[in-house]
Order: sequence, then C-alpha cells, then structure tokens
Amino acid sequence: MEGKVESLWEEVRELTLGTTVDRLQSPPTPLQFLRDFVSQNKPCIISNAIPHWPALSLWSTPSYLSTALSSSLVSLHLTPDGQADALVPHPSQSSLCFVSAHVQPTLFPQALDLIRRPPNHLVAYLQQQNDCFRTEYSELESDCDAHIPWASEALGCLPEAVNLWIGNHLSQTSFHKDHYENLYAVVSGEKHFLLLPPTDVHRMYIKEYPAARYSYSQENGEFRLEFEEPERYVPWSSVDPCPARASLKQESLKFPLYFNGPKPFEVTVKAGEVLYLPSMWFHHVRQSPGDGGCTIAVNYWYDMQFDIKYAYFNFLQSLPCRSIDDQTIPEGDCEDDSGPHASSNHLNSRFSGDESATNNVEIHKDRDNVQVHERTFVLDSSMFV
Amino acid sequence: MEGKVESLWEEVRELTLGTTVDRLQSPPTPLQFLRDFVSQNKPCIISNAIPHWPALSLWSTPSYLSTALSSSLVSLHLTPDGQADALVPHPSQSSLCFVSAHVQPTLFPQALDLIRRPPNHLVAYLQQQNDCFRTEYSELESDCDAHIPWASEALGCLPEAVNLWIGNHLSQTSFHKDHYENLYAVVSGEKHFLLLPPTDVHRMYIKEYPAARYSYSQENGEFRLEFEEPERYVPWSSVDPCPARASLKQESLKFPLYFNGPKPFEVTVKAGEVLYLPSMWFHHVRQSPGDGGCTIAVNYWYDMQFDIKYAYFNFLQSLPCRSIDDQTIPEGDCEDDSGPHASSNHLNSRFSGDESATNNVEIHKDRDNVQVHERTFVLDSSMFV
Repeated sequence: MEGKVESLWEEVRELTLGTTVDRLQSPPTPLQFLRDFVSQNKPCIISNAIPHWPALSLWSTPSYLSTALSSSLVSLHLTPDGQADALVPHPSQSSLCFVSAHVQPTLFPQALDLIRRPPNHLVAYLQQQNDCFRTEYSELESDCDAHIPWASEALGCLPEAVNLWIGNHLSQTSFHKDHYENLYAVVSGEKHFLLLPPTDVHRMYIKEYPAARYSYSQENGEFRLEFEEPERYVPWSSVDPCPARASLKQESLKFPLYFNGPKPFEVTVKAGEVLYLPSMWFHHVRQSPGDGGCTIAVNYWYDMQFDIKYAYFNFLQSLPCRSIDDQTIPEGDCEDDSGPHASSNHLNSRFSGDESATNNVEIHKDRDNVQVHERTFVLDSSMFV
Repeated sequence: MEGKVESLWEEVRELTLGTTVDRLQSPPTPLQFLRDFVSQNKPCIISNAIPHWPALSLWSTPSYLSTALSSSLVSLHLTPDGQADALVPHPSQSSLCFVSAHVQPTLFPQALDLIRRPPNHLVAYLQQQNDCFRTEYSELESDCDAHIPWASEALGCLPEAVNLWIGNHLSQTSFHKDHYENLYAVVSGEKHFLLLPPTDVHRMYIKEYPAARYSYSQENGEFRLEFEEPERYVPWSSVDPCPARASLKQESLKFPLYFNGPKPFEVTVKAGEVLYLPSMWFHHVRQSPGDGGCTIAVNYWYDMQFDIKYAYFNFLQSLPCRSIDDQTIPEGDCEDDSGPHASSNHLNSRFSGDESATNNVEIHKDRDNVQVHERTFVLDSSMFV
C-alpha cells in the first residue's frame, strides 16, 4: 500500500474518519451537525432521532399501509434477483452491462404482497426515488416529518427530494454515490451500509457500461434485457463487495485496490435511527426485514455545496492510472454516476427550477464527459503515477 | 494552462470562489458563517463587524497607546527593509535563505516612535504573534472583544491566540499559510492582502531554504545574518508577487505557474472591517497607515479542523512535478511552513496543552518531512504528471 493515493486513504482515516462511524445518542444541534459532520464530509448515525414519528409504530403493520394506500398506484421495481442499477453479464458479449429494473405501475397492496412474499425469480422493490414519498405516497405524509429540522437549519434549505423505500432481504443497491447530503431514516427493519469516502474513488473501479433495462413479461414471468436506443454508457463501480465465496479470490485479483485497501465502514441502521450519509460517499446497501416482513426507510436529499471539497474530488478522480482496459467510449454518450437516478430516474431534470444545483451538476457532468477517456484503471496498487 | 492541476485552479473558482471575495455588510450568524464560508474554505470580508470596539476611536491617537503602555516592554521586530520571514540572498552562496527579524525587547513608546518615524535602513514592526495581545498588550484588552462571538460559536471554541500588529507601509509579510482559521480585524489604516486558495499550492513554488536571523547592532546600526545552528531548513514560497518592474519578466519566467495562472484575490481590509482568512490559504500582506501614522490590526487564530479538506491538500501537495532544482535536504532538518511562527515563534510548542491540534500538526509535519525530497518544481505549466 505504498504511494500517494494510498497515503490519502490512510490519512483521511487517521485525521478525521477513524475506523467506525460516530454514533450520537440524540439529534445534534444544527451548528454541531454542520461543524462536526457536514463541513468535514463525515458520516454519523443518530439514535433516538425520530421517536415522535407515528410511522415507527404504524408501518410495521402491513394492513395499516395497505389500507392507507389501498387505491394508490405506485412504481414497483422488478428484477429477477434483487439487483437493480447493477452490473450483469452482457447477453451478446463477454463483458458486463448496466441494468435498471423493470418499473411496473402497481396497486400498493399488491406491491406490498409481492415484497413480503416473494415468488421465485421475481424480486420487487419500492424504490422509485424522484421525491416519490411526497408524490406517490402522499397519504402517509402525516406519519413522518416533512424534513429533518436540525438538518434543514444546518444546511439552510428544505429537502430537494424525500423518498420512500420498501423492500425485502433479496434487494441490494450496488456501490454508487449521490450529489446530495442524505439523511436516511429507517422505520422498520435494518439497513446495512458499506461506506467509502470520496477519497477512495479509484478503489471503486468506475468504468463505462452500456445501459440496459429489464423488461418483464407478466405472461411468461420472464425478464428480457433491452439496451437503450440510442446507445448510452453509464459510469458505474465494477466492484461487488460481497462476492460469492468461490469467486472472492478472483474478484480480489481483479479489484485489488478495493479488496486490499482499508476496509469500508460497515454501518447497520436500525428502526428509529438516522444515518447522515455525506454527499459523494460511495455506499452499498443491503437490508433485513422488520416485524412486518419488509424493510422500510425514508430518506431526505438536501442540496450539497459544490465547494472546494468537490473540486478536490474531481481533481482526484481525473488523475489517470495505468490502464488494464483501454476501452474508449464516444464522447457525449456517457452520463454521470450520480446514483440510481442517473439512469432513467434523473432527479435533476425534474428539479430544474433550482438553478444553482442544476448548473453545478451540469459543470460536473461536462467535465465527466470530457475526461471519460482517462478513467481507466490499474491492476495493482503500485501503479499510481 | 492545460492540465489537471490547472483545471483544479479553474474549477474551484468557477464553482465556489468566483473572482472577488464576498463582502458582508454586517456580521453573519454563526450558522451562516460556518455554512457559507468555513465549511467551504472560502474567505469573506465583514463590514461593520466591530463598531462597538473602543479601539476604533482610541488607537488612532498615538499618545493614547503610549500612555496605556508606557511601561510595557514589547517584542519589536527589526529588519533593514521591512522583509521579515522572507527570502534574501545568501551571503556566501548564489542562492537564497530564509531570514527572520531581529527581536528587540523595547519600551512601547519608543517602539511606536520607531514605527511612526522610521529612520533610514531600519524598519520596525510589532508582530510578535504567539498570543501577544493577551500577554504583552494586556493593558489594551478592554479596548477590543476577547474573541469574535459569531466565529467562536460557529467554530465551537475560543481563539487559540490573539495577536496585535502595529507597523508602517515599509513592512510586508511574504506569501505563507497558517494552520488556523483566522479572523483579522483592522483597527487603524488598511491591510492589503493577496490571497490564493490551497488548491494553488504548486503556484507558490515552495522550496527548502536555510534558516537565518537578523542580528542588529545598536552600536553601528547594522544588520548581520546569523544562520541557525544546527542548520535548519524552512519550506517557504519562492514567489515575490510584487517584484520591481525591471525584474517582472525574469520573475515570470522563473515562476510561470504563479504569474501566468489565475490572479490572486486582492483584498483591502479597512479600519472597522474583519477579514475571514480560511485555514491553509496562502496570503501576502502589505499595509497603509491610518491617521496615527501606523497600521494597527488584531487577529484571532482559531483551531482548524484537520478533515478531508486537509487530507486532500496534503495529497495535492505531495504530487511530484518535474524538477528544475534537484536540491535535496537531509531529512529531519526541515520544518513546516505554517506561517511566520514556523521559524522561531512556534505557537504550537507554546500551546501543547491542546492535544488534538498539536497531534494533528505533528502528523502533518512528519509527512512534510517524509516528502521533502519530492517538493521540487516545474519550469513551465505543461509538465505536471
């Protein structure tokens, strides 16, 4: 682990992050939250953060939810294996592609049933994002706070989006980052996060993958991969942090910077707790169901500041490493890897009223596109320039 | 100006810094200060920041100061030309050395006289730092606030040091950075700052220079350079941003990254105004006298956070550039370039009670020493790796 980038990974842990995520026993003051966590781009878990939410007791009862949303048509995400916004083998090449879920408008009670009692080869996940909690699930709004008060005061704004997540143990979210400050409140069950700071971007082996989408046939119960037309490439992390035991050695050889570097921060967020997930942190998410047979969470996306930290990150990411894969992609066909919404659920296009955030993201995306030829990666950790 | 480091300089200005320093017409709230400036490592000037200070009216009258401090022995810094903590020609080699002022304990009225009516070839500057306002000038404490209330609340601590500066137009402070959040209040006259963000570290051409000190003889009125024993090297910026007109072209050829890159931020801070100078920003300072014939300022150093921004900075600084000067220095003989106090006025050694700050600076200094062989610089801007 010699080399300058490796020193950065170590130093950010020595100086500020430590080896475990800080846990607060009650909500911080806005100043404390801003000073000790947001300004430092450092995560924390807050216990007893939402004790007054009716959702905490109500949502563990499936019949409560099904009654409240009895006639709501919601966007249900379907995959064969719980891997949406993830890499799967390309059907006609010996490579991988980036696949999004089939999105099926479904009556909520039926969707919840599919999540709680999954049939074979069909994993359902309510994870529409795009501010879905305030649109598709507005009947539940009085069960939660409309925002996290101490976070809103610290960040000086209200959430840009509030999302509801209802899933089961089969669904995972692969490593990605978001251009938002994220307050993630678990209401039922547990969420298991793996976190890596933005300093560790090279350990994610982000590469361009052709974008596809599952198409699910209700007639024969089969999934088909459909590639986007015109062709589009998505920069995505190549690393599966939880490979099958049999392939661990092979994965370690392919992605040594990830598997041989500092361990990711492991965080389990339980019902009633809130995770502050700082902007630009890479996160991988698994989940365990609660009493009602599913995992339920509400997350609040707040605009991030595109400040010196972000400029440093872009600089770091732009540094070339010796390539193991000289694949080049036509400029202009690529998109930013800013979370699952980077594929079809593109939040920014829906929130174009916020000029500052939108403009800043555009700057970033332009740079990403300009630099796409340079984002290729090393085979071992001694090759950094 | 192609290249990745150059893109960083441009992007941090596009995203967050702009082309001029923000000016607030009244003090910010602690949250606003923390969110919009400290967290973003972004400077600002605050007008009407200290209207209630008795110092604002009292200190422009030299007799008031001389009476209040009639029997105070203060540390007067003497140089032949107003350049203390600066580079001067090495007396026995065709290179430069780093020179500190001769420090002469002097009765305050006599010191003030020397500053207000400078004799030939003798420039006096009261700039002891090391918390001098609360020690050498304690008789004046009731004329100012003991701290900047909104800054203390934002930063969650009281100042680590409060310093008084009394000088004339002949004194300059060469480019350097401090490991502190700095609130700089001008009481009389004006201070003229040139500022560069920490992203621009390579533009400072920091190199190791042998440390010397002026020794002033009151008998013959002459200065002699005395080199430190044992030999010690100080990393210092090689750039004089205000060279004589005749040498501008030559200086531009020697330091193209500075002279051809984005202009430094130019800031004039007037009496009654406060500059927030973020930690790790490079600053060069000149001054114009006020009504009393000198420039007077009080600055408050607050502990900085050694967070992800600091780790990114260290990484950036560690990146090697092709060398124009392969000078190597014995390890262990070098010191950190953390402001004028890095030479003899080493604040950290005086404040060793604060474990966290001291430890963090130690980490940094160790890294600086380890990497000293790599901090050599390019001749033109296209040579970055």
